[in-house]
Amino acid sequence: MAKPKKETTLMDKVVGLCKRRGFVYPGSEIYGGLANAWDFGPLGVELLKNLKEAWWKKFVTERIDMVGLDAAILMNPTTWEASGHVGSFSDPLMDCKKCKSRERADKLVENWQHDNGSDEQPANWAGEKTPPQDMLDFINAKNITCPQCGSLDWTLPKAFNLMFKTQQGVVEGEGKEIYLRPETAQGIFVNFKNIHTTSRKKIPFGIAQIGKAFRNEITPGNFVFRTREFEQMEIEYFCKPGTELEFHAFWKKFCMDWYLGLGVTPDNLRFRDHDQAELSHYSNATADIEYHYPFGWGELCGIASRTNYDLSQHMEYSSKDLQYFDEATREKYIPFVIEPSLGVQRSALVFLCDAYEEEEMKEGDTRVVLHLHNQLAPVKIAVLPLAKKIADNAKSVFDNLVRQLGLNMDFDVQGSIGKRYRRQDEAGTPYCVTFDYESLDDNAVTIRERDSMDQQRMKIEELVPFFREKFTY
Amino acid sequence: MAKPKKETTLMDKVVGLCKRRGFVYPGSEIYGGLANAWDFGPLGVELLKNLKEAWWKKFVTERIDMVGLDAAILMNPTTWEASGHVGSFSDPLMDCKKCKSRERADKLVENWQHDNGSDEQPANWAGEKTPPQDMLDFINAKNITCPQCGSLDWTLPKAFNLMFKTQQGVVEGEGKEIYLRPETAQGIFVNFKNIHTTSRKKIPFGIAQIGKAFRNEITPGNFVFRTREFEQMEIEYFCKPGTELEFHAFWKKFCMDWYLGLGVTPDNLRFRDHDQAELSHYSNATADIEYHYPFGWGELCGIASRTNYDLSQHMEYSSKDLQYFDEATREKYIPFVIEPSLGVQRSALVFLCDAYEEEEMKEGDTRVVLHLHNQLAPVKIAVLPLAKKIADNAKSVFDNLVRQLGLNMDFDVQGSIGKRYRRQDEAGTPYCVTFDYESLDDNAVTIRERDSMDQQRMKIEELVPFFREKFTY
Repeated sequence: MAKPKKETTLMDKVVGLCKRRGFVYPGSEIYGGLANAWDFGPLGVELLKNLKEAWWKKFVTERIDMVGLDAAILMNPTTWEASGHVGSFSDPLMDCKKCKSRERADKLVENWQHDNGSDEQPANWAGEKTPPQDMLDFINAKNITCPQCGSLDWTLPKAFNLMFKTQQGVVEGEGKEIYLRPETAQGIFVNFKNIHTTSRKKIPFGIAQIGKAFRNEITPGNFVFRTREFEQMEIEYFCKPGTELEFHAFWKKFCMDWYLGLGVTPDNLRFRDHDQAELSHYSNATADIEYHYPFGWGELCGIASRTNYDLSQHMEYSSKDLQYFDEATREKYIPFVIEPSLGVQRSALVFLCDAYEEEEMKEGDTRVVLHLHNQLAPVKIAVLPLAKKIADNAKSVFDNLVRQLGLNMDFDVQGSIGKRYRRQDEAGTPYCVTFDYESLDDNAVTIRERDSMDQQRMKIEELVPFFREKFTY
Repeated sequence: MAKPKKETTLMDKVVGLCKRRGFVYPGSEIYGGLANAWDFGPLGVELLKNLKEAWWKKFVTERIDMVGLDAAILMNPTTWEASGHVGSFSDPLMDCKKCKSRERADKLVENWQHDNGSDEQPANWAGEKTPPQDMLDFINAKNITCPQCGSLDWTLPKAFNLMFKTQQGVVEGEGKEIYLRPETAQGIFVNFKNIHTTSRKKIPFGIAQIGKAFRNEITPGNFVFRTREFEQMEIEYFCKPGTELEFHAFWKKFCMDWYLGLGVTPDNLRFRDHDQAELSHYSNATADIEYHYPFGWGELCGIASRTNYDLSQHMEYSSKDLQYFDEATREKYIPFVIEPSLGVQRSALVFLCDAYEEEEMKEGDTRVVLHLHNQLAPVKIAVLPLAKKIADNAKSVFDNLVRQLGLNMDFDVQGSIGKRYRRQDEAGTPYCVTFDYESLDDNAVTIRERDSMDQQRMKIEELVPFFREKFTY
């Protein structure tokens, strides 16, 4: 990917803001961190919460063809044999014999292609599934040297499984190797029959899940874009064979509309359909939604048509009948499935990058403002008493609003009112409510809007319906 | 714990309802499950979501002395050396030399005490920290035989660390042993300085977190009461040394009030203060809230006064200054901390057990009803068209309500209206909205309340404000 200097700077600014204001800190920072792990601070946890709620509302709550699930991270390990993860969920890693650094062979090839503007490929090229010898031959032929020490002295690439392993059980015989799930999807497939039976849903219907997944991969950095521990928002949408491409198109649009509806700049989003060579062997259509990150275009979300591969595999490995019986047509079939898969932290990164602005107010005066959608803003309303003397009166306005609206709010008495506005702008707070001396007499407050900076006077009793409307998503 | 037969039956009924209605399924069930792991189905995931939201609202959103955090599960392993988990987070396990079964020595002792109504203890008794030889001597002296095969032929108890281990990193030298966090608390402590700096909160203030934790222990079963993978809702409340017991009392009451406010029967809840022998070495006060489960009284939530132990340890191991500077008094100190810790799945179990009723309607007719609090009910409102012919009209009522209220709702057209009411009673749905032929003319519907089974006619336009008030928590 291209790394234009100007845009790398935006990333630095976003990372800086995130640390400074408590969106995201390096994980276990007092111990020097842990390989690209991140902790979400007071503002970050609210942002994550808000975007997960927004997803759940539009993808689950508002749809009668959708139900939710929360499956365990630790699953019976046969799950991962059936899904193919034990056999082939791996990266091709090769070592530099000189400096001992370890690299992904397929990424070395792709970087070479990019740097040379070339389409040349190893023989039998299939990305990370390319035969190791073909990969090595190409790397040697093109003189692709070690990015760490410049040598050309590689070992043959070796498949390195990406699942984290652990041992469960303390009782002799029970102790077995299990995995941290590398995706949430399989938790849905193994529960398909139970959910279908108990929810009484008829095909087409979907099962939605939000949860953590873990991949022990070499991360390229880029802040929270790709991390070993991450959270997915996934749906498996079950449909009748033959109808899957229609639903694939539907969910592509639905996902795109979700991001647009939360205010992401349309020019920063695009579809990218996978071509035949790139498709997984079981998929008959896959598309990504890409975002124009500060470091270039990259994946944001994927919508895959996975045919009946997963359910078929689980039928075979479990010897359970996972077919669906269509009462209307008296047909029995293994449902096909469409999988819209979104990353929580990656979506947060997109919302933050897209919302960031340094706005020039006048000569030499710039305000940093996060134009976050009302649904996403970590702090919805800040109540600001003009002076400490009237803080108690302002606090009762705060208490009443927070109880009735149930929204996350801030109460800030520190510094000049101008400084407090700027602080809220930087946190993305859509509204400030200023309580001044006049408020004691007129039972009204000043509402200041983040983006326009417009101010209006409003009766305190009108605040609840006003904000309720503003924050209905 | 006593296991009266009558109450065990209640547990069976709750487990049965959970499976039948999609609250909780055995994890990876098609593969024979995984040692007491559970997956939360369509109703269960909504219950968990609702209880976590209820906790967050009361413990975080409504309090200006509280902020949130979402730290990673995978942390720098030095964290667990500092916290003491690497050294001493273990169970004393002993093997039966005859049948090879493995048991917790301290539990064998406690079960013997219970069965014999005796207070006798091993020498130097300290629960799971009792010296192994003292434990073994007592077990042999009292003839405590293997519960599996009846032999008295034990090995010396050996400490077995309860943390799940895994390997992170694929690069030579980087690959290191890390742990799945056994508690969420340490994620808060290592972020104390970052959060204090960026949130500008002054002591006393607290940091709240909801997240998964993992303990590789022998589970006693009891459904979701104790599982190896579980979710915690934890707070570390930082205060000035000397004020901690006052805050300990405050948080004890606050936690109790939270459960009571969500409708748990007062007689089923009690406090249990830890006595001196039971306290952790760093704690100067700890209390549990216990619930009267179907299998007896057991822990529901813990409120511990942890002094400055954790922050002191992290200061020592990280060489970072984690002291707090009090601007008002110009004092510098390591804050003391109160930790209210609640289990998500365990709370769900309590709400389910407490809400379950088999209500005799008339001779030979019993309805199963879950009297869940409005805030907890997985389905808030079910819209029921009296006939399929008017399903579309009813659906537009559903669509309008769900969009405006943002609440999880059901739309059910299958079966007689009586059967549908019973189905919703069993799921704990507080309100059914029945759309009949008259609704086409009078723009009104019948609202049926779950507990009283009272019905009232209401204009469709009045539904939103009516339900908004009912579901404000």
